[in-house]
Amino acid sequence: MKARVHVMLKEGVLDPQGEAVRHALGGLGFEGVGAVRQGKVIDLELAEGTGEATVKEMCEKLLANTVIESYQIEML
Amino acid sequence: MKARVHVMLKEGVLDPQGEAVRHALGGLGFEGVGAVRQGKVIDLELAEGTGEATVKEMCEKLLANTVIESYQIEML
Repeated sequence: MKARVHVMLKEGVLDPQGEAVRHALGGLGFEGVGAVRQGKVIDLELAEGTGEATVKEMCEKLLANTVIESYQIEML
Repeated sequence: MKARVHVMLKEGVLDPQGEAVRHALGGLGFEGVGAVRQGKVIDLELAEGTGEATVKEMCEKLLANTVIESYQIEML
């Protein structure tokens, strides 16, 4: 089975990568681009029967820095 | 309107970040974790009426290195 985890900086945390992308898009002539946020996506192949609780534990312990990042788990 | 872009390394391209995550999860005692792939997710706030074609152009020109990366666009 597979799981997909999205890790994004929390609202209000400065996102310099996203800001750089926004700036670069403007420089390339793309108009009307507002806020840009960049995060990570992690695709995991897991043993059958692995529950969402286990993936949550992985997020808390390793995948996300919960002080500044939030995560979303999608079991596929 | 918003768009979400996923940028992942193509199949067959070595993913050292994903490999590091896999190794670290094993070290933390999580068993049965197979392949791990790590990519980027970019959330864009766009002017009303911006089409998927424009976002595709952003991907081709800036967001993805199409030699080694593939992208998926989701209009929200």
